[in-house]
Amino acid sequence: MQLILASASPARLATLTNAGINPIVRVSHVDEAALELSMATATPSEIAQALAQAKCEKITQELADSNELAPNTIVIGCDSVFELNGKPYGKPQNAAEAKSRWQEMMDTTGILHTGHYVTFTNEHGDRSTAEGTASTEVHLGELTEVEMDAYLRSGEPLAVAGGFTLDGLGGAFVQGVTGDPSNVVGISLPTVRKLLTGLGITWTDLWNQAR
Amino acid sequence: MQLILASASPARLATLTNAGINPIVRVSHVDEAALELSMATATPSEIAQALAQAKCEKITQELADSNELAPNTIVIGCDSVFELNGKPYGKPQNAAEAKSRWQEMMDTTGILHTGHYVTFTNEHGDRSTAEGTASTEVHLGELTEVEMDAYLRSGEPLAVAGGFTLDGLGGAFVQGVTGDPSNVVGISLPTVRKLLTGLGITWTDLWNQAR
Repeated sequence: MQLILASASPARLATLTNAGINPIVRVSHVDEAALELSMATATPSEIAQALAQAKCEKITQELADSNELAPNTIVIGCDSVFELNGKPYGKPQNAAEAKSRWQEMMDTTGILHTGHYVTFTNEHGDRSTAEGTASTEVHLGELTEVEMDAYLRSGEPLAVAGGFTLDGLGGAFVQGVTGDPSNVVGISLPTVRKLLTGLGITWTDLWNQAR
Repeated sequence: MQLILASASPARLATLTNAGINPIVRVSHVDEAALELSMATATPSEIAQALAQAKCEKITQELADSNELAPNTIVIGCDSVFELNGKPYGKPQNAAEAKSRWQEMMDTTGILHTGHYVTFTNEHGDRSTAEGTASTEVHLGELTEVEMDAYLRSGEPLAVAGGFTLDGLGGAFVQGVTGDPSNVVGISLPTVRKLLTGLGITWTDLWNQAR
């Protein structure tokens, strides 16, 4: 069994690694901006799910086209979108946008949606798919001017959907969550476990690959 | 400014490190079992808070006694207790206890309490203290027999309060939390930030020590 993560996110890779799973990383280079533009009326969770599917299908197809899609291969695509007041937020474009967004979301609650899409090519070469979006409420704390300026200077907000992390410097600024915290980091472990179980794969068998 | 973590827990150290804080670790060797026995009528959160205080005070006193308590030194003690059906659970004694506990807590909700106790010795050598307990609801998933046996075989449940982790192999078995996830790992970042702020210390200034 091999597991391929169709994502360049170091946070997703670390989440899987910490949970005992060592995937192979393969970056899809999907044109996310174009796909988002084509979905002007979609909800934030629909955007996350569509991007997850696009990433997973692109990598699965690339592997199939180059005869690299070995039997017993899982490909996982994920995409995260932060929803605040009904609007979707990806990565901030610059420090000014990150700051104005933080001023809007401080001391309030948003929702982090992560779309998950999985293809599984079994021992006979037959392909099945599963998908699921997980949504976690994130309760953001209040920052002083000094703390906010220091956080923006760190550069971290520019690298991540919503402009904050739970697993990095931002962790001290998140008061709490309602839902799965790994989903906020970018890949919901219980969701992936459930999707794989539905495809006939035992989660804990994947640990053996890694140990 | 130096920060001392009075805990041997690698998960607490990693939580601080990931959040930009690099503490010095100093293990207190408090007799936890004796202290717990002396608190037979205490609630789980009272036990966690008393143990956190004992660890922090022991290290602070050891440093003071050996003239190592430099000006601008923060000492943090933490202790975590898992509460299920009103009863406190620390680390399981053996695999059989871990298994029977998992059978009890599967598909149900418990509360992870972490006590935090901080001493701050300022530039004049004056000492101030702050304390706070954080409590996070943990919603545990359902495991198949195969998954549970594999998890017990990994040894992880024996090393941690409550017999599960959020940041390790156990992450895939936690459906979600209500509250601060870093508190479940063993040190609540927003709580420590709040306690330090109350002592006049700016959280983001501690990043500079680490970078």
